[in-house]
Amino acid sequence: MLDHIPAADLTIEDVRTAHERIRPHIRRTPIMTSDYLNDLTGAQLYFKCENFQEAGAFKVRGASNAVFGLSDEMATKGVCTHSSGNHALSLSYAAGRRGIPCNVVMPRTAPQAKKDAVRRYGGTITECDPSTTSREATFAEVQARTGGEFVHPYNDPRVITGQATCSAELLEQTDGLDALIAPIGGGGMVSGTCLTVSNLAPETAIYAAEPEQADDAYRSFKAGHIIADDAPKTVADGLLVPLKENTWHFVSNHVTDIFTASEQEIIDAMKLTWKYLRVVMEPSSAVPLATILKNPDTFRGKRVGVIVTGGNVDLDKLPWLKA
Amino acid sequence: MLDHIPAADLTIEDVRTAHERIRPHIRRTPIMTSDYLNDLTGAQLYFKCENFQEAGAFKVRGASNAVFGLSDEMATKGVCTHSSGNHALSLSYAAGRRGIPCNVVMPRTAPQAKKDAVRRYGGTITECDPSTTSREATFAEVQARTGGEFVHPYNDPRVITGQATCSAELLEQTDGLDALIAPIGGGGMVSGTCLTVSNLAPETAIYAAEPEQADDAYRSFKAGHIIADDAPKTVADGLLVPLKENTWHFVSNHVTDIFTASEQEIIDAMKLTWKYLRVVMEPSSAVPLATILKNPDTFRGKRVGVIVTGGNVDLDKLPWLKA
Repeated sequence: MLDHIPAADLTIEDVRTAHERIRPHIRRTPIMTSDYLNDLTGAQLYFKCENFQEAGAFKVRGASNAVFGLSDEMATKGVCTHSSGNHALSLSYAAGRRGIPCNVVMPRTAPQAKKDAVRRYGGTITECDPSTTSREATFAEVQARTGGEFVHPYNDPRVITGQATCSAELLEQTDGLDALIAPIGGGGMVSGTCLTVSNLAPETAIYAAEPEQADDAYRSFKAGHIIADDAPKTVADGLLVPLKENTWHFVSNHVTDIFTASEQEIIDAMKLTWKYLRVVMEPSSAVPLATILKNPDTFRGKRVGVIVTGGNVDLDKLPWLKA
Repeated sequence: MLDHIPAADLTIEDVRTAHERIRPHIRRTPIMTSDYLNDLTGAQLYFKCENFQEAGAFKVRGASNAVFGLSDEMATKGVCTHSSGNHALSLSYAAGRRGIPCNVVMPRTAPQAKKDAVRRYGGTITECDPSTTSREATFAEVQARTGGEFVHPYNDPRVITGQATCSAELLEQTDGLDALIAPIGGGGMVSGTCLTVSNLAPETAIYAAEPEQADDAYRSFKAGHIIADDAPKTVADGLLVPLKENTWHFVSNHVTDIFTASEQEIIDAMKLTWKYLRVVMEPSSAVPLATILKNPDTFRGKRVGVIVTGGNVDLDKLPWLKA
């Protein structure tokens, strides 16, 4: 079974199988461009808008691959997970489409928009404190109680393989890319991107973008081993979690570099995209543009794919309107 | 010349010619859908996202058709217009691409985002009071001074024919529509829609959506002759202007019905689309969804095209965050 395949043994054939499995449950999201942002960065930016998934995030790809890959027997007790938000609601969405239960552990500080979506899709939330320690302890209790299949938000080959379908589409939708950049939290999207791109477009550089205030992936990458924060704080609420062994495999082997951005740079980039792309993206999704603006020499003159990971935002609490 | 063709004599061949002319200057914008909004309305809604034009509005279609249809001799003195915003910035955008001057008269109350865009594209703004009377007087002075070709924001066959290309794309991108709905201000988009749809899909009903607080088109439609407001006030700042003879021709002959919505209904619909479609649309563009929600029996079970006219919003002044 795919969940027992080590990350290192995943192949592009696994990605193709995942893509066929999840196709009825996801959208082939469009690529958006902005002449204004191209002029500003000197690059050709191709924004792959996963915020336009029905559930508002790329995580519906990995969640659907896990949920629809379960045998009928495994599916009876449903699925469970812990997540800062988008994996929780995406797993609830996929479980709802299959008609099986979904239990999720979320930090009480998660955006209301994300908690509301979990409940709308039929998921059950148990809240925890906003730290990795609390999250893991609370989850152990929930999993023991429900007996559901654990679908880790990123450290799961089924999830990584599902996320890998995003860059497969992006490569098809563009005419070759010099570079591709995605936000990094636990590394699920970046790992999926590495799996696809290292096979289909090995000449394309892969960058990861991370908040300075949750820069464990950056520090891990520079140190050569996983370093975890316990309770980082950043406006990019989707990027709070640390790398794990499956994602570290891809990050350490295939990522060209990791760039970081400050809170203000993330907020400024978020507002720029709302204004000029006219898409509602969440703070986490703005980190790549923030780092492109901060490292112009790396991207100038290049064709750059930018993965817009999600668009589940509290519209009543926009970060540039904070008092 | 097209600008001397009466509206009644425009043909679908004129629309095709316009589409060829403007193709290098516009985007074929995507259609967005939301399962959530479909469930909420009981209809299949196909949102044609003209907010994703580089200039952020469908008006770049009519403006480009007018600007690129000018002879070299006519183009030397540039173009001029009056507009509450999106026509001004779209004409500036098109004129900038042709490299000719553009002078625009805008109400001083127009959104800052729209004024900023005019200047960014190289247009020159003269401000007026927010009334039809003031706008027309100020414009007469500007036109006399500059000698530019007047491209009316909607009462101009070149502009109507350009706007008509939007629903031509929408029909191609969908598999047949039972109805199509667009916001109505001066009636340029609705007239273009009538021109295309009455020729290519005469079985498709055409609806217009208008703010209650600027309901001159609604009252004109019911009365059977043009009734103009002088200084209406609504959050839907793109819909302040009255019908004129060219747009009245289409509205009176081809529109099935006009629906209105209150300010709060417009704001609620705007927030719904930001949340579930995850697109940045301006208040004017939310009026159609507001009226669909208000008139469910008309739309339930139907395939409905919804034209999202623009996305130029002051992100610092979102209407649901007003104190």
